[in-house]
Amino acid sequence: MIVVGIDPGYAIVGYGVLEYAGLRYRTLEHGAVTTKAGTDFPRRLSAIFNGTRAVLAHWKPDAVAVEKLYFTNNKTTGIGVAEARGVILLAAELEGIPVFEYTPMQVKLAVTGYGKALKPQVMEMTRRLLNLKEIPRPDDTADALAIAICHCHTAGSPYRSLLR
Amino acid sequence: MIVVGIDPGYAIVGYGVLEYAGLRYRTLEHGAVTTKAGTDFPRRLSAIFNGTRAVLAHWKPDAVAVEKLYFTNNKTTGIGVAEARGVILLAAELEGIPVFEYTPMQVKLAVTGYGKALKPQVMEMTRRLLNLKEIPRPDDTADALAIAICHCHTAGSPYRSLLR
Repeated sequence: MIVVGIDPGYAIVGYGVLEYAGLRYRTLEHGAVTTKAGTDFPRRLSAIFNGTRAVLAHWKPDAVAVEKLYFTNNKTTGIGVAEARGVILLAAELEGIPVFEYTPMQVKLAVTGYGKALKPQVMEMTRRLLNLKEIPRPDDTADALAIAICHCHTAGSPYRSLLR
Repeated sequence: MIVVGIDPGYAIVGYGVLEYAGLRYRTLEHGAVTTKAGTDFPRRLSAIFNGTRAVLAHWKPDAVAVEKLYFTNNKTTGIGVAEARGVILLAAELEGIPVFEYTPMQVKLAVTGYGKALKPQVMEMTRRLLNLKEIPRPDDTADALAIAICHCHTAGSPYRSLLR
């Protein structure tokens, strides 16, 4: 099973591509689509759309795993992130790949066994599970790999979390 | 000048296409892209993307005017609306059409001359300015026409409101 995890954003969209077979992970690719501040927002959205769609078209994964979005205090940033998330979901749909979403707590639980684990713990466990020498940078890429792990971990169980 | 006004949403996306010349409006088309509740959300986004893109590709407007989004209490609904708005902005970008955004107050002010006008007043003035027999349904379509009027009204002035 090939899974692409995506951490949505409009400045940095982290992604990670994993192959999961026999309870073992293989990291096929990881990286980030970045857009420059000051660029027209619709143009940033098209860069995000094209960038993520290219990853999906290349790897043709069985699933895309995306973090569930919650709004906190910064509502303006939240709107931009949700708009970016919209074009990411669209890219998956146009590539015919099912989307699954997970809460931050589900990701932490899947990766570390503890739903309230701290970010550095999640990153270190992600590194170990994927047998990487270093924690991938930027953080968004490490987060995306953790989300992909979460899906691999969950997909075999009956507790699949289908998007809305 | 041809302007498409769009009122973003994920169940109903209202749109209105106006031609504005010599301070007179001509309504070229108005309608709504609708998606069914219970459908997978990425599929709803693709219906919104395809539907709005088709309108833009057909009319090749000089501008797309979209209402600025604010989050209120219903944060979950707000995320879906922002995701839908993201794919609408993407459709405009991919068609090469500049996007302008206006606050609800700017729209009310442009249409009625009063920034705190009530919704029925805005709708009735929209009907009169466009010389329509009835207020278009659904409300989202009437709202979209009002947003298009706002852009026509504003675009000739130096107070253009460029998107982020």
